[in-house]
Amino acid sequence: MDTAPDQPPKRGVRVGGDPARSSGPPVPRARAGHIFLRACRGEPTESTPVWLMRQAGRYLPEYRAVRERLSLLDLCKTPEAAAEVTVLAVDRLGVDAAIIFADILLPAEPLGVGLEFVEGEGPVIRRPVRGPADVDRLPVVDPLARVPFVFEAVRLARQALAGRVPLIGFAGGPFTVASYLIEGHASQDFLQTKAFMHREPAAWRALMEKLAALTIAYLNGQIAAGADAVQLFDSWIGCLAPEDYRRGVLPHVRRVIAGLAPGVPVIHFGTGTAGLLELMREAGGTVIGLDWRVDLGQAWRRLGAGVGVQGNLDPALLLADPAGIRQGVRAVLQSAAGRPGHIFNLGHGVLPATPWAHAKAMVEMVHEESRR
Amino acid sequence: MDTAPDQPPKRGVRVGGDPARSSGPPVPRARAGHIFLRACRGEPTESTPVWLMRQAGRYLPEYRAVRERLSLLDLCKTPEAAAEVTVLAVDRLGVDAAIIFADILLPAEPLGVGLEFVEGEGPVIRRPVRGPADVDRLPVVDPLARVPFVFEAVRLARQALAGRVPLIGFAGGPFTVASYLIEGHASQDFLQTKAFMHREPAAWRALMEKLAALTIAYLNGQIAAGADAVQLFDSWIGCLAPEDYRRGVLPHVRRVIAGLAPGVPVIHFGTGTAGLLELMREAGGTVIGLDWRVDLGQAWRRLGAGVGVQGNLDPALLLADPAGIRQGVRAVLQSAAGRPGHIFNLGHGVLPATPWAHAKAMVEMVHEESRR
Repeated sequence: MDTAPDQPPKRGVRVGGDPARSSGPPVPRARAGHIFLRACRGEPTESTPVWLMRQAGRYLPEYRAVRERLSLLDLCKTPEAAAEVTVLAVDRLGVDAAIIFADILLPAEPLGVGLEFVEGEGPVIRRPVRGPADVDRLPVVDPLARVPFVFEAVRLARQALAGRVPLIGFAGGPFTVASYLIEGHASQDFLQTKAFMHREPAAWRALMEKLAALTIAYLNGQIAAGADAVQLFDSWIGCLAPEDYRRGVLPHVRRVIAGLAPGVPVIHFGTGTAGLLELMREAGGTVIGLDWRVDLGQAWRRLGAGVGVQGNLDPALLLADPAGIRQGVRAVLQSAAGRPGHIFNLGHGVLPATPWAHAKAMVEMVHEESRR
Repeated sequence: MDTAPDQPPKRGVRVGGDPARSSGPPVPRARAGHIFLRACRGEPTESTPVWLMRQAGRYLPEYRAVRERLSLLDLCKTPEAAAEVTVLAVDRLGVDAAIIFADILLPAEPLGVGLEFVEGEGPVIRRPVRGPADVDRLPVVDPLARVPFVFEAVRLARQALAGRVPLIGFAGGPFTVASYLIEGHASQDFLQTKAFMHREPAAWRALMEKLAALTIAYLNGQIAAGADAVQLFDSWIGCLAPEDYRRGVLPHVRRVIAGLAPGVPVIHFGTGTAGLLELMREAGGTVIGLDWRVDLGQAWRRLGAGVGVQGNLDPALLLADPAGIRQGVRAVLQSAAGRPGHIFNLGHGVLPATPWAHAKAMVEMVHEESRR
C-alpha cells in the first residue's frame, strides 16, 4: 500500500490497478490503516475486523425490497442498484468491509453456455460442458468488454462508501465455476465434475486454464476499478480428495493468485476444506478463509506463519438466541488467541432465515469481545 | 478375542455376548486370525483387508432383483432376505468382511415417530422431534424385543458365511439418528438439529442420552447374535463446528462406545470429519473410519498411535476407468505407508451408479497392490 496508515489517500492513486483502464473521477480509497487492511497484512488491530459473506442478501428487508423490483441478474447488471445493496449492508450491520454485490457466474455468462438464474432454484446452465469439444468451443472472453457493469458497480460502491470501509472484489475459483459449467446447476456430489476430471485430464486442464485466465482478468479489472482486496470463492473444493485437488486444481488456483495485481490482499476461501488447508496455503492467498467445520486456532497452526485467517462462526448459530451467539463469538476469538491477522466472518454465507438483528448483534459482539 | 489366531473357534463361544440371549444352534465364528480382525487389532497382515460401505446395494444386479420383490423395510424385516443380500455382496466382490444388511433408522421405528421409507426419497419421520415435550414422550425401547429381525438376520448371515469372513454389525451414531428424528428427513444443512442443540440444551442432552442407551442395547444385541465387530455410523457429524461436537455429541458417543461388549472392535465412522479427528479419537473406537476428503496418512498421524484407520477412496472414483481406480487405490495405500491397522474402504457408501465390475476390480487391486 502506498498511502501511510491513517493518512487520507493521494488523489488518483489506485493501488495495484491500471488507472488508464478506469473511467470517471477518482474516488476516495479506504485508508490503508483501516483495521480490515491491517489485519490482511497481519498487523495488530485495536479490535478484530468483521464482515459477513453474503451480507447483502435475502435476510435484509431492504435487500428484499430491491429484489421486488429487480431479478438477481438485473440487479447485478444495474451498477447503481448493485452499489446500493453493497453499501446498505455496511450501513445496516456496521461491518468493517463491503463486498461488491455480484454473482460468481457473471463472468461465465459470455461463455455461451446458456446461463440462467431460475428463481428459487439458482443458476442453471442450459448447455453444460460435458466433453473436450465443449471446452474447445468456449470463447476467450474479455470481462472488461463483456461484463462492464461489474466494474462500474465497483466504482459506484467506492464512491458511495467514501472511504469509510474497504471494498472487497471477488470471483469464483476455477474449480467451483467449472463445477457449475459441467453439472449445469448446483450439486451436492459433483459426480459429473469428478468424472470429467478423471476421464478427460487434458480437457480438464484446458478448461481450468481458460477459467484461470478469465478469473485473472476479471479480478484485476475489479482491482483497477477500486477494489481494496479480493476474495476467491473456491467454495466447492471441499468435495475433493486432497490428491485430486493437488493434481487437478492447485496449479490453476496458484496461477490465478500469482496473476493478480501485486500488493492487493487476496482472501482464498473454500468450504469443507479441513483436509485441504496445507494445499490451499500452497496455492496462495494473503488470508485463508475457513468454514466452521474446523477449529480456527488448529487450522491456523497447520497453515503456519505469514498468513492470515478469516472465519469461522457457523452461520446456523445466527438462528440461535443472543446468548448462544455470544458464546460462539467468544469461542472463535479465543481460538484465534489474539494472533494478528484474524478477520472475523461466518464460515459461509448468511442463511436466508437469519434474523438481521442477530447478524448486527454478532458484529457488535465481535467488536466488544475482541477489544477486551 | 478368546480364540487363538488361525484356530477354529470353540463351540458356543460368543465373544462379548450373552449366550443366554441368543437362540438357535451355535454358528461358526470367523477366525480371530482373519486379516480383517488382525487389522482391527493393529497387527500386520499379508495384504490390506478391504470391504465397502453399502456393498449390498442398488449397484448390484442381484440386490435389485431382491428389491423387486421386497421394499427396503420388508427386506430389513425378513431375516432370510437380509442375510442373503449380506452374503451375496461378499460372494460377488471377494471382500474381507460382511456387514449386516439393515438401515440405521430401524431401532428408531419403535420410538413412535412415524418412520416411513418413501421410495426414491429415503426415510421420512411423520412426527419429528421438535421440542422438550417430544423428547419426554419417546419411550424406552428394548431393541431385542422390538426389532428381533435384525438379530435373527445377524445369526442367519453368520451361519451362511460359515466363518469365511467376519461379520460387522452396525448402528447410527446418536447425532446422526437425532438429526433424522428432528429434521424429519435427510438434510443438507441440519438447521433444525443445530437450532435444537443450541436453544434446548437440556432436551438435547435428554434426547442424546435416550439414543445412546438404545444404541448400546442394539449393538450389544448384534454382538451377542454373532457380530465380530461393529461400526458406528455417525455419518453427519461433519456438519458441526468442533466446539459443538465436543460439547453436544462427544460425551454421548463416548458413552456408547464404552458401553459395548469388551474385546469387540469398534469402527467409529463419520463423513466430513477432517476437522473433528482428534475429538473422534477422544470419543473412542478401535478404528476411525475416514471419508475421502482428508489424506489418510496425515489423518492417522493426527489420530496418533494405538488406533487403526479405515478408508478412504472417493466413491466417485469407481465411476472412472480401471486405470484411474488403480491410481486412486495406490495413492490410498501409499498414504497408509504399510502401517499395520489399515482397513481399506471407500470414504462413504458405494454410489448407485457404480458399475459393479469396478467395485470388484477395486477389491482385487487392493489385494494385489498391498501384497507388493
